[in-house]
Amino acid sequence: MTRRSCGALRAADAETVAELNGWVHRRRDHGGLIFVDLRDRDGLTQIVFDPQHTAFSQAEHLRNEDVLRAVGRVRKRPPGTENPKLATGEVEVEVQELEILNRSQVPPFQINVEENADENLRLEYRYLDLRRTRMQRNLTIRHRIIKAMRDFFDERDFLEIETPLLIKRTPEGARDYLVPSRLYPGSCYALPQSPQMLKQLLMIAGFGRYMQIARCLRDEDQRADRQLEFTQLDVEMSFCTQDEVLDLMESCMRFVWKRVLDVEIPPFARLTFAEAVERYGSDKPDLRFGLELAASSDVFAGSEFLVFKSVIENGGEIVALRYPGGAALSRREFDALTEEAKLLGAKGMVWIALGEDGIKSSAQRFIEQPHADELARRTQAQRGDAILLFADARDAAYAVAGKMRVEVGRRAGLRRDDAYAFCFITDFPYLEIDPETGKPMPAHHPFTSPAPGEWDLIETDPVRMRAQQYDMVLNGYEIGSGSIRIHKPELQRRIFEMLGMTPEQVEAQFGFFVRALDYGAPPHGGMALGVDRIAMVACAEENIREVIAFPKNQVARDVMMDAPSPAPEKALRELHIQQIPSKPKN
Amino acid sequence: MTRRSCGALRAADAETVAELNGWVHRRRDHGGLIFVDLRDRDGLTQIVFDPQHTAFSQAEHLRNEDVLRAVGRVRKRPPGTENPKLATGEVEVEVQELEILNRSQVPPFQINVEENADENLRLEYRYLDLRRTRMQRNLTIRHRIIKAMRDFFDERDFLEIETPLLIKRTPEGARDYLVPSRLYPGSCYALPQSPQMLKQLLMIAGFGRYMQIARCLRDEDQRADRQLEFTQLDVEMSFCTQDEVLDLMESCMRFVWKRVLDVEIPPFARLTFAEAVERYGSDKPDLRFGLELAASSDVFAGSEFLVFKSVIENGGEIVALRYPGGAALSRREFDALTEEAKLLGAKGMVWIALGEDGIKSSAQRFIEQPHADELARRTQAQRGDAILLFADARDAAYAVAGKMRVEVGRRAGLRRDDAYAFCFITDFPYLEIDPETGKPMPAHHPFTSPAPGEWDLIETDPVRMRAQQYDMVLNGYEIGSGSIRIHKPELQRRIFEMLGMTPEQVEAQFGFFVRALDYGAPPHGGMALGVDRIAMVACAEENIREVIAFPKNQVARDVMMDAPSPAPEKALRELHIQQIPSKPKN
Repeated sequence: MTRRSCGALRAADAETVAELNGWVHRRRDHGGLIFVDLRDRDGLTQIVFDPQHTAFSQAEHLRNEDVLRAVGRVRKRPPGTENPKLATGEVEVEVQELEILNRSQVPPFQINVEENADENLRLEYRYLDLRRTRMQRNLTIRHRIIKAMRDFFDERDFLEIETPLLIKRTPEGARDYLVPSRLYPGSCYALPQSPQMLKQLLMIAGFGRYMQIARCLRDEDQRADRQLEFTQLDVEMSFCTQDEVLDLMESCMRFVWKRVLDVEIPPFARLTFAEAVERYGSDKPDLRFGLELAASSDVFAGSEFLVFKSVIENGGEIVALRYPGGAALSRREFDALTEEAKLLGAKGMVWIALGEDGIKSSAQRFIEQPHADELARRTQAQRGDAILLFADARDAAYAVAGKMRVEVGRRAGLRRDDAYAFCFITDFPYLEIDPETGKPMPAHHPFTSPAPGEWDLIETDPVRMRAQQYDMVLNGYEIGSGSIRIHKPELQRRIFEMLGMTPEQVEAQFGFFVRALDYGAPPHGGMALGVDRIAMVACAEENIREVIAFPKNQVARDVMMDAPSPAPEKALRELHIQQIPSKPKN
Repeated sequence: MTRRSCGALRAADAETVAELNGWVHRRRDHGGLIFVDLRDRDGLTQIVFDPQHTAFSQAEHLRNEDVLRAVGRVRKRPPGTENPKLATGEVEVEVQELEILNRSQVPPFQINVEENADENLRLEYRYLDLRRTRMQRNLTIRHRIIKAMRDFFDERDFLEIETPLLIKRTPEGARDYLVPSRLYPGSCYALPQSPQMLKQLLMIAGFGRYMQIARCLRDEDQRADRQLEFTQLDVEMSFCTQDEVLDLMESCMRFVWKRVLDVEIPPFARLTFAEAVERYGSDKPDLRFGLELAASSDVFAGSEFLVFKSVIENGGEIVALRYPGGAALSRREFDALTEEAKLLGAKGMVWIALGEDGIKSSAQRFIEQPHADELARRTQAQRGDAILLFADARDAAYAVAGKMRVEVGRRAGLRRDDAYAFCFITDFPYLEIDPETGKPMPAHHPFTSPAPGEWDLIETDPVRMRAQQYDMVLNGYEIGSGSIRIHKPELQRRIFEMLGMTPEQVEAQFGFFVRALDYGAPPHGGMALGVDRIAMVACAEENIREVIAFPKNQVARDVMMDAPSPAPEKALRELHIQQIPSKPKN
């Protein structure tokens, strides 16, 4: 007798005796026999109870999700009753010995069907939800992705080094989670938003090649696809160029996709930020399809159409987008599409349908055949397609055209779940303007090095300065980001100064770090990739919670454990803190 | 030209051109030439500057820890100047091009000598301390250990599943670190002391085989070898026996030791708790050496020696320990040893020296030759050895004899750093008495299953009940612990009841968990091993901080980053908390 998994038995095992352990997935009484599909992580096996065996009477009372140990003879199923959908579908086990290891109450939702149970109910009973084939598959793929990443870097002599979870609070950027100290009244540790400074210190420490699958935590306001904690593949190396980092990370992802999904990924496209915006209207373009944008202001030079005319006069841009097959849309459908564009930020939208019987347009009076011909040439539109035009200030026109490109791609069925388009975006602007304060802040982080030869722009035109920063994009998701770092202490101080920090502020917040640069910091750079998002795309899921074993829900709660939970005054008192009494209502 | 690491070049590379990047480890001016040992993680290479090259004048100003990029011709060293201690010792690089990538200030301690710098200074400048060969080696070994563990379990179809860091507070046991919630005033998350309940939920979820290299946090009062956060190899499996868990974990450690240290570990000894105490006076025996204890009360039946007499009458025990070569000790040395035994808890100690010229003893009048012969037979003592006797209540006598056994082993040079003695201890008592409250509490945790057939002792004699608990011990350190868990909800409730919890307390603290057992929990068990301690032993270190990249010091501070640090009132206010004002002094 051998213990086998519920996915293991094949025709060749017939006439052996097997022990199976698993859950009652489904029970059927049929022709005097009782059939049970027994389930474990590995699969399903049909086990059969014959009325002549004592086990039969036990089997009569089995319910879904009861836990069994069954021993019996493996036999081929009678011809015509095989189940080709099941790996074990050629055989069944004739139970001679049954042990009911545990009973199950009736689950709050069915496990053996892919019903759409309410997500909060699924999360409350996550241990049942995780029994479903899809969740078992998702967490298996996630495991394999991470294992492949580790194998890849280990083979290349990278060390995984664990950085601490209890670190120093930094007032920059998003909110840290704080952990009050019991030993030091009034003091807190912070949980890391990323190991950024620590991995740079490991380069200063001479480790040269570091990686870590790192847990990071950020107390941000929740969005649908945000979690309080997330996992990143964190990589840093010394004495490297930007291209070496990109080559390495590209090789890693191609290795992972090949190993885990058996998919060959072609070499990644590499676009500068400027190119990405001009061609796709986004710094995270979905390259599963073309539909490149075309700047078209010049096409309408001298146009009497007021919308175009004022945009051109104000130095804006008219951006054209092809809509494959769009000529078939009714006027009403075009109106709806225009509304959608407005929701995405468009001032308006002009459409041109390249129909069999000539062009139609929402701006019919101003669109001549030569206009249409030139736009079609630029967007590669064909007869039967439509062309959408967005006129606005340059950035705004590209932004909305980029969003509509994604929408058109979706409508045209070009965003296939089983296609994977990776690319790198490079040469980002160093600074962006904080929408809240109007002050310039680093688009990436203040440890990023400006582009070679652009340091002097700090004094003359900092907003024009570009960064040695790069993003990895997959199917329109930004899945990671990195940069070549500053390794000279005087340059690091200059960046902090440009950001408006006084030397005292630099010392208080980053003193230990800038000091470390004084002791022979090597040139270095790296990248961090979001493992949750990568797993989400690899599992063809659209919600990041589907690839996390025990996620928080959309309002930051763990509804299974019921966390966070009220902390008794005594526990807080040990930490030298107390809750601020809520204000009395008038 | 190829870029090479500083540990790569060999005689066969002579006459090629190489690029090296690294740190100035040491500089010597010698016979008109300048020699620099250039260092990276991989090793050292000697580079040479000739006065005829322009690089020479740059090299004149190099200081230790400056960062260089050097390009030059590899050549064999002149005969007689090879350095056989260095992997690259047959060659040197004649520098043709030098780039000083960064300068270093003078480090606060020397990096190129193994001096004993003050540990707090080392921790403050950890990025410099980590440059030392020994620390680079330690973190490399740690990486390899963890990688080997992951490979081992991956090959056996275990999934690594990440459990959350922000979980529910549990009032049991050691203190949780608390993380106040911004969204839910007055509520906190807790950081996990271990993923115990979550990994059991993964078994209930049907994953069958789980592992995780998990970060755990515990707000304990510091001891020399404790860290606020630690790393454990966490394993859980379903449908398994205790022996299957032990076999698996044993295979894992033998695999790790073979792969990382190239050491073949023989099969682990397996001792019950009772055996371990009787033979070694400890449930974490150091099995690098024998020196087994011998119960010897019967030898002294009828003795007139008052100390022995009263112990025997009170049902205590006289425990004998061999001290190899101990007959050579002077009376004064034996007195000092007796004082040491008292510090370890002994009421007193009787010694017997088996000298060439007969026996000597601190209780000379009461020790006859037949006593000595019988004790020598039981402890395998030889002429030239001594025998130490500890008489006390049974547990106390074994405890102190066990501690003295370790001390004697140390003195006799039996605790070798390069020997590895693993064992398992099984059949622990289920309950131990809380020294503070006098109440019984689980020796392991309340999810542990009692020994088969001993459930009924709950009603009759709970203190006699044994647990399906097992520890792994290495060279006298407990490196891990595990158990077969309770999988039936009614039995879990019975254990909580035995521990004096009301149903309401059970519901508040463990409600979600006991509820999960209601839905078909499989039999399961597992283990957790302390990775930091394992790495410490593998690196032959005696301080756990030597195998952690960025540890806290002995008073729970990170002195490099300066954490914990005061949290401004504003940051606390966002979390709806405030510091409790310190009491005014009278």
